Amino acid sequence: MTFAEARAAFPVLAHIAYLNAGTFGPLARKTVEAMAAEQQADLEQGRSGASYFERWLELRDELRTRLAGLVRVAAEQVALTASTTDGCNIVIAGLDLGPEDEVVTTNAEHFGLLGPLRVSGARVVVTPPDPDRILAAVTPRTRLIAVSQVLWTTGQLLPVRELREQSGVPILVDGAQSVGAIPVDAAALDFLTISGQKWLCGPDATGALVVADPERLRIARPSFLSKESSEPDGRFAPRAGARRFEPNWLSMGTVAGLIAALDLAPEWRYERSAETTSRCRAALEGKVEVLPGAATLVAFRPPEGEMPETIVTRLHEAAVVVRAIPGFELVRASCGWWTSDDDLGRLAAAL
Amino acid sequence: MTFAEARAAFPVLAHIAYLNAGTFGPLARKTVEAMAAEQQADLEQGRSGASYFERWLELRDELRTRLAGLVRVAAEQVALTASTTDGCNIVIAGLDLGPEDEVVTTNAEHFGLLGPLRVSGARVVVTPPDPDRILAAVTPRTRLIAVSQVLWTTGQLLPVRELREQSGVPILVDGAQSVGAIPVDAAALDFLTISGQKWLCGPDATGALVVADPERLRIARPSFLSKESSEPDGRFAPRAGARRFEPNWLSMGTVAGLIAALDLAPEWRYERSAETTSRCRAALEGKVEVLPGAATLVAFRPPEGEMPETIVTRLHEAAVVVRAIPGFELVRASCGWWTSDDDLGRLAAAL
Repeated sequence: MTFAEARAAFPVLAHIAYLNAGTFGPLARKTVEAMAAEQQADLEQGRSGASYFERWLELRDELRTRLAGLVRVAAEQVALTASTTDGCNIVIAGLDLGPEDEVVTTNAEHFGLLGPLRVSGARVVVTPPDPDRILAAVTPRTRLIAVSQVLWTTGQLLPVRELREQSGVPILVDGAQSVGAIPVDAAALDFLTISGQKWLCGPDATGALVVADPERLRIARPSFLSKESSEPDGRFAPRAGARRFEPNWLSMGTVAGLIAALDLAPEWRYERSAETTSRCRAALEGKVEVLPGAATLVAFRPPEGEMPETIVTRLHEAAVVVRAIPGFELVRASCGWWTSDDDLGRLAAAL
Repeated sequence: MTFAEARAAFPVLAHIAYLNAGTFGPLARKTVEAMAAEQQADLEQGRSGASYFERWLELRDELRTRLAGLVRVAAEQVALTASTTDGCNIVIAGLDLGPEDEVVTTNAEHFGLLGPLRVSGARVVVTPPDPDRILAAVTPRTRLIAVSQVLWTTGQLLPVRELREQSGVPILVDGAQSVGAIPVDAAALDFLTISGQKWLCGPDATGALVVADPERLRIARPSFLSKESSEPDGRFAPRAGARRFEPNWLSMGTVAGLIAALDLAPEWRYERSAETTSRCRAALEGKVEVLPGAATLVAFRPPEGEMPETIVTRLHEAAVVVRAIPGFELVRASCGWWTSDDDLGRLAAAL
C-alpha cells in the first residue's frame, strides 16, 4: 500500500483534515463495506443457525489472533471487549481490592481507568505522570500500578515495561492511545487494554483486554462467553485463557469490520506516524506552546486569550478536526499513518 | 400497519419460517437502513465534532424515553446497556453482596443471570421455578430475588410483581424474554433488564437496565457516561438517574437502528403474538409434548429417540428456524407479532 492508496482508503480525508484518531480513527471504505455486508446477510438470512454461530466464533478467533500478534502475546491471552473501560473494569473488579490495598496511578489519566480505580475499594494514590514519582509511591501495600502507556491528555509516553520491572508490582496499562499508534510489546505486562475504534480505525465499541495469566484473575463479570460448561445452579467451568473475561456479544458486522480495519494497516504505519507527528510538532512550534511527547498525540496550549473549545470549534468550521482536553486547558491533535502534510498545513494555517 | 405490511418489513420472513426471536429477532429493512445511513455518515464525515456528540446524546435520550414508555417507568430510571447480562452484572455487583447474604433464584435461568449471582459472594439459593417454592426460600438474609419474567428454557411465566409484593425483598427481573413479547409494567419492580436484539428486533448488543431508585445502587462499573463531573484523581459526581450505570459507548448506527426497530412495532403487537402463540401450541400438540407456558415461547420435547439438536438441524434444512435448549432436552419456538400461520404450518409439517 502506497501513501496515496492509504489516503484514498478513508473517504473523510478527501475533505477534512481529520486529526482526532485519539477519539475515533477515520473509517475506511472497506471497513464499512465489511460491516454492511454482514448486516445485509443478517437482514436476509436471520441471525441464527449452527453455521451462523460457528462462523461468529471463527471470526472472533481470527480477531483475537490478529490483536495478539499486534501486541506480541498469545491469542489465549486476549479477550474481546467493547472498550478500554471494559478492560479496566474487568481487571480492577477481578483483583478484589479492599481498604488495606493501594493502587498507584497518575493525575492525567482517562476516567475509563480512574473511575474503576475509584470504586474499587482500594486507596488510590495519585502522582504526577513522572516515572520516578510513580515508583516512589509504591509501598508494600501496592497491589497495582495502573497507568496509560500514552496519556490521552498530554500525549506523554510512560515507560510501562520499566515501571513493571523496577516496581515488581503488577501493572495495568491503558493502551487506548498506544496500540496501533506506536509499537507495543505486551509480553512483559500483566494487563493491557486495547481500543479498536481509535488508532486501529475499527467500528465503534470494539476493544480487547490482554491478560498475561488468565488463571490468576478472578472472573468478576461473567457472561455466557465465560463458561466452558455450567450447571442449572450457575456453577461453571471457565473457558481456557482470557476468553473467560469476554463480557458481551459483538455483532458479526462489528467483528468483520475490525478485522477489515486491521487488514488495512501497512507495514510502514509506525515509521510514518512518528515522522508525521514530528512534522506536526514542527509546524505548530512558534505558533503555540506544544507539550513534549514521544507518541502520536500532539497537545498544545491555546494562544493567549482563547479557550480550547473555541479553537476546536473554529478549526472545525475550517474542516480541521482536533479536540479539547477538558480540565487541562489543552487542544490535542492526533497524527496517524494516514495523515498528510497538507492536513498539518491546514491545521497550522487555521490556528 | 397491517399484518401483510408487518411481514413485508422483515426480508428474512419471505423465505424462512423464522421462529427464534428468543435468541435474535428478525431485522426489518428500515432498521438496517437506519444503521447503514449512520455508518455512511461516519465514513464520510468522521465520528467527531460537537454536533456529532450532541446528536448522539439526543438519540440516546430519545431511546431511553422510548424504552421507558414501553415498560411504564420514567426515562430517568433507564440506563442503556449492551445486553441483559450487562444489566444483571451491574445490579448484582452494585449490591455488594457477601457470604452472609442470600439470593434466591430458580434452576431454569440463563447464565447471564446465574453467572453474576454465582460470582457475587452471596449464598445462591436455587429453587424450582414455582412461586410458592421461591417465596418459601426467602429468609431474613435474602437480599435479592433474581428471576426471569419468562424463562428462556421452558417459556414459563413467573408472577414477578407478586413475588416482589409477597416477599418484601428487592427483585431483579430478567426481561430478556418478556419485554417486547408481552406487556410489561416495571413500575413495581426494583430492577429490570431489557434486551434490544430479541423481541424488540433491534441491532445486536443492545439493551437496557431499569433501576427504580438509582441513588440507592452503588456504581460498581463506572464509565465516562457515569459522571456529571470528575477530578484528576478520579473522584466523580454521578449523573442524575440511571444514566450513571451506562457502561459503554454504543455506535450512532446502533442507537438509530434500535429506535427504528421500536418505531416499527404496531399497536396490535401483544394481542397478535398471544393469539399466534396459542395457535402454535395447538399446531404442535398431538405431535410432540408441549410444555405449559403463558408468554410467546413454546418449548417442546423431541419425539422419542431424537435429540433436540438433530431436530433443529433438520428443521433448519427445511428453512424453519428454532433452537435447542442445552441441558433441558427441549426445542424452543418463538412466536412474534410477525409470525404467520404459514410459518406455524411449516414448523408442524417439518416435525
